[in-house]
Amino acid sequence: MRRIAVINGPNLNLLGTREPYKYGKNTLDEINGRIAAEASRLGAECLFFQSNSEGELVTAIQRADGTGGIILNAGAYTHYSIALRDAIAAISTPAVEVHISNVHAREEFRRVSVIAPVCAGTIAGFGSYGYVLALYALLEMGNNSGER
Amino acid sequence: MRRIAVINGPNLNLLGTREPYKYGKNTLDEINGRIAAEASRLGAECLFFQSNSEGELVTAIQRADGTGGIILNAGAYTHYSIALRDAIAAISTPAVEVHISNVHAREEFRRVSVIAPVCAGTIAGFGSYGYVLALYALLEMGNNSGER
Amino acid sequence: MRRIAVINGPNLNLLGTREPYKYGKNTLDEINGRIAAEASRLGAECLFFQSNSEGELVTAIQRADGTGGIILNAGAYTHYSIALRDAIAAISTPAVEVHISNVHAREEFRRVSVIAPVCAGTIAGFGSYGYVLALYALLEMGNNSGER
Amino acid sequence: MRRIAVINGPNLNLLGTREPYKYGKNTLDEINGRIAAEASRLGAECLFFQSNSEGELVTAIQRADGTGGIILNAGAYTHYSIALRDAIAAISTPAVEVHISNVHAREEFRRVSVIAPVCAGTIAGFGSYGYVLALYALLEMGNNSGER
Amino acid sequence: MRRIAVINGPNLNLLGTREPYKYGKNTLDEINGRIAAEASRLGAECLFFQSNSEGELVTAIQRADGTGGIILNAGAYTHYSIALRDAIAAISTPAVEVHISNVHAREEFRRVSVIAPVCAGTIAGFGSYGYVLALYALLEMGNNSGER
Amino acid sequence: MRRIAVINGPNLNLLGTREPYKYGKNTLDEINGRIAAEASRLGAECLFFQSNSEGELVTAIQRADGTGGIILNAGAYTHYSIALRDAIAAISTPAVEVHISNVHAREEFRRVSVIAPVCAGTIAGFGSYGYVLALYALLEMGNNSGER
Amino acid sequence: MRRIAVINGPNLNLLGTREPYKYGKNTLDEINGRIAAEASRLGAECLFFQSNSEGELVTAIQRADGTGGIILNAGAYTHYSIALRDAIAAISTPAVEVHISNVHAREEFRRVSVIAPVCAGTIAGFGSYGYVLALYALLEMGNNSGER
Amino acid sequence: MRRIAVINGPNLNLLGTREPYKYGKNTLDEINGRIAAEASRLGAECLFFQSNSEGELVTAIQRADGTGGIILNAGAYTHYSIALRDAIAAISTPAVEVHISNVHAREEFRRVSVIAPVCAGTIAGFGSYGYVLALYALLEMGNNSGER
Amino acid sequence: MRRIAVINGPNLNLLGTREPYKYGKNTLDEINGRIAAEASRLGAECLFFQSNSEGELVTAIQRADGTGGIILNAGAYTHYSIALRDAIAAISTPAVEVHISNVHAREEFRRVSVIAPVCAGTIAGFGSYGYVLALYALLEMGNNSGER
Amino acid sequence: MRRIAVINGPNLNLLGTREPYKYGKNTLDEINGRIAAEASRLGAECLFFQSNSEGELVTAIQRADGTGGIILNAGAYTHYSIALRDAIAAISTPAVEVHISNVHAREEFRRVSVIAPVCAGTIAGFGSYGYVLALYALLEMGNNSGER
Amino acid sequence: MRRIAVINGPNLNLLGTREPYKYGKNTLDEINGRIAAEASRLGAECLFFQSNSEGELVTAIQRADGTGGIILNAGAYTHYSIALRDAIAAISTPAVEVHISNVHAREEFRRVSVIAPVCAGTIAGFGSYGYVLALYALLEMGNNSGER
Amino acid sequence: MRRIAVINGPNLNLLGTREPYKYGKNTLDEINGRIAAEASRLGAECLFFQSNSEGELVTAIQRADGTGGIILNAGAYTHYSIALRDAIAAISTPAVEVHISNVHAREEFRRVSVIAPVCAGTIAGFGSYGYVLALYALLEMGNNSGER
Repeated sequence: MRRIAVINGPNLNLLGTREPYKYGKNTLDEINGRIAAEASRLGAECLFFQSNSEGELVTAIQRADGTGGIILNAGAYTHYSIALRDAIAAISTPAVEVHISNVHAREEFRRVSVIAPVCAGTIAGFGSYGYVLALYALLEMGNNSGER
Repeated sequence: MRRIAVINGPNLNLLGTREPYKYGKNTLDEINGRIAAEASRLGAECLFFQSNSEGELVTAIQRADGTGGIILNAGAYTHYSIALRDAIAAISTPAVEVHISNVHAREEFRRVSVIAPVCAGTIAGFGSYGYVLALYALLEMGNNSGER
Repeated sequence: MRRIAVINGPNLNLLGTREPYKYGKNTLDEINGRIAAEASRLGAECLFFQSNSEGELVTAIQRADGTGGIILNAGAYTHYSIALRDAIAAISTPAVEVHISNVHAREEFRRVSVIAPVCAGTIAGFGSYGYVLALYALLEMGNNSGER
Repeated sequence: MRRIAVINGPNLNLLGTREPYKYGKNTLDEINGRIAAEASRLGAECLFFQSNSEGELVTAIQRADGTGGIILNAGAYTHYSIALRDAIAAISTPAVEVHISNVHAREEFRRVSVIAPVCAGTIAGFGSYGYVLALYALLEMGNNSGER
Repeated sequence: MRRIAVINGPNLNLLGTREPYKYGKNTLDEINGRIAAEASRLGAECLFFQSNSEGELVTAIQRADGTGGIILNAGAYTHYSIALRDAIAAISTPAVEVHISNVHAREEFRRVSVIAPVCAGTIAGFGSYGYVLALYALLEMGNNSGER
Repeated sequence: MRRIAVINGPNLNLLGTREPYKYGKNTLDEINGRIAAEASRLGAECLFFQSNSEGELVTAIQRADGTGGIILNAGAYTHYSIALRDAIAAISTPAVEVHISNVHAREEFRRVSVIAPVCAGTIAGFGSYGYVLALYALLEMGNNSGER
Repeated sequence: MRRIAVINGPNLNLLGTREPYKYGKNTLDEINGRIAAEASRLGAECLFFQSNSEGELVTAIQRADGTGGIILNAGAYTHYSIALRDAIAAISTPAVEVHISNVHAREEFRRVSVIAPVCAGTIAGFGSYGYVLALYALLEMGNNSGER
Repeated sequence: MRRIAVINGPNLNLLGTREPYKYGKNTLDEINGRIAAEASRLGAECLFFQSNSEGELVTAIQRADGTGGIILNAGAYTHYSIALRDAIAAISTPAVEVHISNVHAREEFRRVSVIAPVCAGTIAGFGSYGYVLALYALLEMGNNSGER
Repeated sequence: MRRIAVINGPNLNLLGTREPYKYGKNTLDEINGRIAAEASRLGAECLFFQSNSEGELVTAIQRADGTGGIILNAGAYTHYSIALRDAIAAISTPAVEVHISNVHAREEFRRVSVIAPVCAGTIAGFGSYGYVLALYALLEMGNNSGER
Repeated sequence: MRRIAVINGPNLNLLGTREPYKYGKNTLDEINGRIAAEASRLGAECLFFQSNSEGELVTAIQRADGTGGIILNAGAYTHYSIALRDAIAAISTPAVEVHISNVHAREEFRRVSVIAPVCAGTIAGFGSYGYVLALYALLEMGNNSGER
Repeated sequence: MRRIAVINGPNLNLLGTREPYKYGKNTLDEINGRIAAEASRLGAECLFFQSNSEGELVTAIQRADGTGGIILNAGAYTHYSIALRDAIAAISTPAVEVHISNVHAREEFRRVSVIAPVCAGTIAGFGSYGYVLALYALLEMGNNSGER
Repeated sequence: MRRIAVINGPNLNLLGTREPYKYGKNTLDEINGRIAAEASRLGAECLFFQSNSEGELVTAIQRADGTGGIILNAGAYTHYSIALRDAIAAISTPAVEVHISNVHAREEFRRVSVIAPVCAGTIAGFGSYGYVLALYALLEMGNNSGER
């Protein structure tokens, strides 16, 4: 059974409780529940992790090496954490970058992602459904190119 | 039945015949076939258009107003066509930006999308499967918020 | 009788039907009608052209050479079409740049006009009345300096 | 009777006597005379003010609050006087920015106007006739939207 | 008795009468009254000055040399008046920069203060109460380091 | 009784023991003592937290939601921690940015604060007394606008 | 017999009739005649195409794939048409960039060519003779490396 | 007898009394005395003017038109006053830019002079003796090219 | 006996197991072993620390104060951690910056080190031998200038 | 007989012996031989010079004044030697800039040529054949416009 | 007797023979003759040196250490030769930067002088008379502050 | 016996005699003596070269091809000599960049090294001992990878 790591960064623990007009009204647990269900339906298993700490996220990515893929919403670290970038580049598991909101329609600094160049691809703007799309993308990759 | 416009920009007519290591080995017709089949399975219908001309793409976007959504791979125009941006902003149909390759892992100038801020969301790096993901995203949007 | 070419660029065919709070509620035909009436009153004749295609706009400008002036709203092409700039510079008929909205009060990229340096002058922010002001300006120029 | 404030900034007191090839051969008094005549013909009245001092121009704009509009040629202050910008933004009377020459065809730094974003619109390149166009524009605004 | 100069720059004479949602509804006189009262309570005396003219503000700062401190809201000049900066640097009296609104939450150009590097400190975002905080700060400085 | 969170970032645990000419000779405990005393005098209570870890500071800010305000000296994180910015923006409690030294009189990179735009206001350059001023500011805000 | 495509972009249809001091007094037909004669002399054949439309130029480049080389004067599109760049990169026929004037001695923006990095080489400043030099260069390439 | 206008800008009235290590210990009066004496020795006459106001300096330059030359130390206005630049450009009398300190060895922003391009020449770094050198330069110019 | 702190940042725990062509095939333990042996041979003792967490690295640097020197490979934090910079600046122990690869031959963003200006020196490009060179450098410094 | 100076800059003495995949396998002597033969065939004579020294190249250009043209490959100096630029601008003999490789397809800094604006034209990317093309260009210029 | 080194850089050996409208019609020898005569009149002696080579100019500056001052026109090297800058900074003899033309009224890149920050002062725009002014400046410095 | 070329650039001939607080009090000869002794101890031989001339340094690097390595302190040329960069890239001998001072703690422009990307590694900030460290590094490289 294929395992997928779902990793969320700083402030995403507040999902559903804060600024629902921007990030939707589902909590992170509810979102993770939907991803898990969809994964289960497709014969995969998800491992969930959230942290506000850049260092712990680096470690989580290192640990996800060997799984079938990483779904990563790095939150604010997206825009400056070269440490996260290096972690993704150092492992051989593909990572998909997810953003809940359309980061290109917000402040200028949110348009730069330092991790995008080392991710397999990026999905942004579809609310929490973006995580599900990322799951599909990783499974499609796995079907086409083997457990990379 | 929901209609989705699938609009491809310059040089995407060469898909499958040129630089397959970068853009995959499927022709645009084959890709469109897969999208159409998936749409049909989900009770939607796709309208396909490709042009190398910026002006014709602007017109195509204007004409897609009133459909259930636009899947747009604007190719090179992504990076400078404010005319396309204005067309998307002028209509009330949501557009999803798709890129076959991970544009963030290529030349610096490909990291800027002038149309992203007015699209609903963006999907990049998943090969031709990205069009299918965009289809899912548009249908999900339609389910949640009504024919916008 | 003096002839004036009125040339409109991409997405201006949508005037009156889209985003009326930004661009007014008059259609392009209605606006052209008012310009024609005012021109007629002042003993001039207007030739109208609109296209979403940069190339066709270049050709239209080339063809307007020899008329008594060009009123040009290049829309989004204002900000990057050096081809339009070169066309204006190549002919000897004066062109007046018109914008319906105050482009300086919008996105930063709309503050740059690559065609302004080769136009006789520029008028922005007065809604569709700006075309009429441009007509006055061209006729005043003609009175003062002869059919240039 | 509608009152319009015509405010000119630094060095515009030299009009007609210096660099006539660039700014025309009419003195400021002659230009103001033409504006006054045209205003009178249209049932409006003009108040004229010129100063080389940024502070006095700020005060003049503050005092023009409540009139039917401001025609402002801020001269060199156009390019850096945030104080003038703030004065215009602080009052509720619309201001029209006028430049005698086409500022976009001159030095690069003249292409930036810090006051344009808070003006109703801008007119440049038509010599002293630009003031008359600005008068028309303000009166048209008044007719359409009431004494704002 | 310690004397404190309270110097306000361009457009601050409009306080309370314009854009109250941004700058509060107290007039400059009312604000000065509160500062004076608070100063009096603490055994200090305030000297008030306001001008729209950069040159007069330079002179006012020069004249405040020898007082116990300057509370300076330079308004728009904050962002470009090197002349004010040089005046503050030339005297030996400490100046505290005050802004009524949070300048960092507004236009990008308002984030740059050319006078901040030569002031003792800066206070922004607390409405007219910021002047009172500046008074406290100056008096605290005086207690700790003597009449500098 | 109103509760105020006082949160200090990286290296501020060294206060008083290192570079006293730049940051003063009081330890963080001594400074906190003074703040607590002043708060107590004014009927408020302070909660103190310091960490060198960006992630822990994010969490601390999240936890301070619901208090009467946050006094935040984010130290070096001020200049790049979008994670802290997002945390402040996500909660509804006002935060006041404090800096002991005048950051504008030091290295160029210290002049940029990525958190300032989401804080209520900012105070810099008054040594440890700046924390006390921030306390006054928060209490004043509370009096005027209710426990926000 | 080797075939060479000679492709000219926007406004080059005006050659010889406009600004002869800058672009020479030969019309495009006369220039093409000279190229054809020289090609014929060297046992090659030329195919000529001109368009003001970016999209048509993209298509023309795609169609020139398989010929012995492309001589391309993209005119103004040189400076921003990534679509043309992608077309050249997508085909396997070498393209030589030609400019009639020395683009480096004109406006700053003319110094940037977005197509140069994907061309075999570039020739600028030798008037219409530059096309002949490009012909020589392509034939020399063909002799040395075979019909690529 | 040749007349030379010596114009000093903001804060130069403080010369000799403030920061003598940077600007020397001579007051402006003493410096002017030396210039006057040297001028007198060489058969010229000096007119002295100092103001902190940009507008008054603009007017002073306008009034110096027709004299044999202007010695201008614009102080801080050197770096941003396009109004002063325009005044110098508008008159036909040559101006020599003088700075007491070597502006290139100080803050980066002091290295930009917006007035230098329209002055005849510039002299910086020689203390108050720079004014005397400027006098020599103007007289030399007068001898060689006539009262310009 | 002199003590030297050897501090490694994010992802350096992966040394030897990942991308050996870039970072060499020795694990961090093996590298530390070689440093320890060399230190021992020279009469010094090493203390080793690695963390992916910026905050823990800040604390580790603070704790290394009083040792004979710090050998610091801050990994990705090199390029943006002003917190690490401040920690180094706050203590009196010299730090030597080490990079395994030649950071100047990689991505542009790796050429900027925010910590270099506060380190004693920097060594890059010599693989794991760079740590040994840093050890030599610190011991040489100690011999020449005493335990700083 | 027309004389042409062929001047090569730094490191071009290594041609043919180093990096042949980038610069070809012909030595500078072999290339010069081909140019000389072609020149001889066309009734011209070449003078060859190579130096690694910027100063000697400046002198060589000065000495080439009066010849029928300069073929200049300035190597690395192309990108920063304003001294070479000034030398070319100071003489009346036309210079043609040649580069063996396509400089636009290499590092970003190689895209800037400080000498191009003062050369008659530029040729790049055709290997050593570019020198022959430059010879043709100079001779064509001579035929058309006389020994300039 | 005080000795002054007069050092001229690249292309200044062409003075008087090239572009006299820009640099005057006097040869370098004639200019040096005037300087020598003026120096002699004032009891000083000049040593003259010119070279097109940056390295020789560095050496000449090193050798001028111990003289009473250096008059340096570094020509094009002014704008990029950090080597010259370091030479001037390394010696204790004051250098005065001279430019014949007003470099601020020419190309943008000529406005940057990398040597100005380490010179005592700068003189530009007065033709060859600028060298004489520099001589006066150096002698004045010597009188006031001793043979530095 | 392995030979190492030690090449020093402009102004390094002044070492020990000028600015000893910045560059140490040892002359270049003394430093070279120490390097030679250390090399001799390790069975290697050093060849020493110093020049102020960029061209001679290029030639020296070319000549060092085939030796066991180059220790290069390019002085000021470090920051702009692309000619030196090209020379290093053209040869197959590894070069180590050395700087005596910590260039990152000085002027901003000293932080850019155009030669670093083509060097094997870089060492800065350890005074003249840096040359010895570079010797160790080159010998270590030779041991590990053979005479490259």
